[in-house]
Amino acid sequence: MTDTDDFAGAPWDGSDPVRAHAETLVDWSARVESGDRVVIRVAEGAHDLAVAVAAVLGDRGATPVFVYDSGEVSRAYLRAAAAERLADPADGHAIALYESTDVVLSLGGTRNVAARADVPDATRQAHARGNAPIREARLGTDWVSTVHPTRALAQQAGMAYEAYQTFVYDAVLRDWQALAEEMAGIKTRLDSASELRLVDEDTDLTLDIADRVAVNSAASVAYDSHNLPSGEVFTAPRSADGVVTFDVPMTVEGRQVQDVTLRFEDGEVVEQLAGEGSEAIAAVLDTDNGARRLGELGIGTNEGITRPTDSILFDEKMAGTVHLALGRAYDACVPDGTGNESAVHVDLIRRMGEGSRLEVDGEPLQRAGAFVET
Amino acid sequence: MTDTDDFAGAPWDGSDPVRAHAETLVDWSARVESGDRVVIRVAEGAHDLAVAVAAVLGDRGATPVFVYDSGEVSRAYLRAAAAERLADPADGHAIALYESTDVVLSLGGTRNVAARADVPDATRQAHARGNAPIREARLGTDWVSTVHPTRALAQQAGMAYEAYQTFVYDAVLRDWQALAEEMAGIKTRLDSASELRLVDEDTDLTLDIADRVAVNSAASVAYDSHNLPSGEVFTAPRSADGVVTFDVPMTVEGRQVQDVTLRFEDGEVVEQLAGEGSEAIAAVLDTDNGARRLGELGIGTNEGITRPTDSILFDEKMAGTVHLALGRAYDACVPDGTGNESAVHVDLIRRMGEGSRLEVDGEPLQRAGAFVET
Repeated sequence: MTDTDDFAGAPWDGSDPVRAHAETLVDWSARVESGDRVVIRVAEGAHDLAVAVAAVLGDRGATPVFVYDSGEVSRAYLRAAAAERLADPADGHAIALYESTDVVLSLGGTRNVAARADVPDATRQAHARGNAPIREARLGTDWVSTVHPTRALAQQAGMAYEAYQTFVYDAVLRDWQALAEEMAGIKTRLDSASELRLVDEDTDLTLDIADRVAVNSAASVAYDSHNLPSGEVFTAPRSADGVVTFDVPMTVEGRQVQDVTLRFEDGEVVEQLAGEGSEAIAAVLDTDNGARRLGELGIGTNEGITRPTDSILFDEKMAGTVHLALGRAYDACVPDGTGNESAVHVDLIRRMGEGSRLEVDGEPLQRAGAFVET
Repeated sequence: MTDTDDFAGAPWDGSDPVRAHAETLVDWSARVESGDRVVIRVAEGAHDLAVAVAAVLGDRGATPVFVYDSGEVSRAYLRAAAAERLADPADGHAIALYESTDVVLSLGGTRNVAARADVPDATRQAHARGNAPIREARLGTDWVSTVHPTRALAQQAGMAYEAYQTFVYDAVLRDWQALAEEMAGIKTRLDSASELRLVDEDTDLTLDIADRVAVNSAASVAYDSHNLPSGEVFTAPRSADGVVTFDVPMTVEGRQVQDVTLRFEDGEVVEQLAGEGSEAIAAVLDTDNGARRLGELGIGTNEGITRPTDSILFDEKMAGTVHLALGRAYDACVPDGTGNESAVHVDLIRRMGEGSRLEVDGEPLQRAGAFVET
């Protein structure tokens, strides 16, 4: 008798990871309530998640408007539009929409990560400037970004489609309440500390985090956390001194980047090296003055994310990793308004090695990527 | 030497019916100008047309918002939502969007004409009532509806996909200016007439059209015409007497209907017969008092539409056909506000036969489906 003989058929039990994803997004992440006005931004490949979200929103008594957020449509418009129109768009209708909206759910899921590869940089920048009022109106809502697994994203991750689907649902469908409680302790330690130190074979970096407020990023607007999946505790360093390396490969502005080393003095990058993509890092650093300083230190806590997939939404939350961002700080971390300002926010990620440690005010927080009980 | 030997290869000349469709929609139909705020409603299967429309709008200096108009998403929401929410939706954000919009372009193109087949009638009706303010806000703009050819629509038409694509572009890409000028003469004759009579083997119907205003439906908002393709001259009869038959098969409320005969007395249907779908017609007639009276008489003029495809957007414009609608009249035809009122507007179509004639005040307008020079 073989194993397969044991299976005598079974009626479908109704379990559906897409439905569970939609419920997690609507209920845990966005805290949608009856009567809420919701905008759902649907990427080209996110149709199935949009259908599931529509059913959950209907059940919860919310009223939806679905916006089509297609990279191909965006590329066509941006390449055809004049720069002066992009910089000064007649976008009152989009602003009116978002200003009268309670919740914005962004369902990522492209069919081609390179869909906008041939939009000139100057066009992107003009659009980013002109689009700022819409972005601000969106950020004024209870917004959450998530991703539906597509073949294009599986390809970007170097994974088979079925394996990538499993990866995404392992990352998204978690016991968020339990993780939120665990991360609350880490937040408390960071909030009361003045100094955080990263030490590993090739790294020794000291960060000044005095009087900054960490975010317990538990994938819910109730925690100032706007990503699903999430799973990180992050704060905004005031300054940095020492050397840090980042081994996790990623795509920055369309270019491959790996094994970046940065040396900081008085909070500023004074030297950079990269195994690959040094020019991309140099371009980031040259954006403005704030791009040479740190906007974020984050510690990944999502045990469902076990490998990088070249998607920052997932990679930076990987348990056993730490990330630092060059550029803009999040307001939530900086109650006194002295956070770093910049047009960019570029995250770089390192896995914490066997002999590594994270210390707060000289006391151990992590050893070898695992939190230490205090 | 065979025919294929003649073809020595040719570089692509850039002609693209999807691009031409988008240009016709934006320039001829909607008359979009620089600075216009445009909402584009994108059906699931209309992605390629949306990309082309985005490029044309960018070129013309308009600012777009793309709304995802998916039958599957709509079905999921409608089946899950409570009736009281549908009747009284928290839809201020949708109304804010449309009230600050100049032009609405609806790009049809479903992937399944039966996508909403299992939405209960009561749910549809509750939604239609609750959705009325959004619909009104949309109808307050320069709106145009068109269709991108999909395999689902080809299937509904009983046609191969490539043949259906050719059919759609033959209907959409026409010399609209020339047709508008031709139809202007027909409008003039209808506007000055008191009586219109349809006569054929199985039909003899007299319509009172005194003091009504015909629409020269030339597929442009400049002519009060909101469909692309269009190609019809229509007015709103005051009354009707006699018998009329409709041979063109169609789907009414999800049911096949064919060979309908209606007998009118004093403007009201007093008898109906159908080769198929008599129950569907009876259900329409029983909707309300206005459903037993006519809201429209239309004469198809689009020579590109050479066969019915079970899509009212195309069928009613077929050259050589006449259609009558039970129910609501269009405001544009009724300057004195005495038009027929009803919750329904159901078009029925007949091909005009070899011995048929259309007469206005006793003078010939058409013989055998062809206009008569005067």
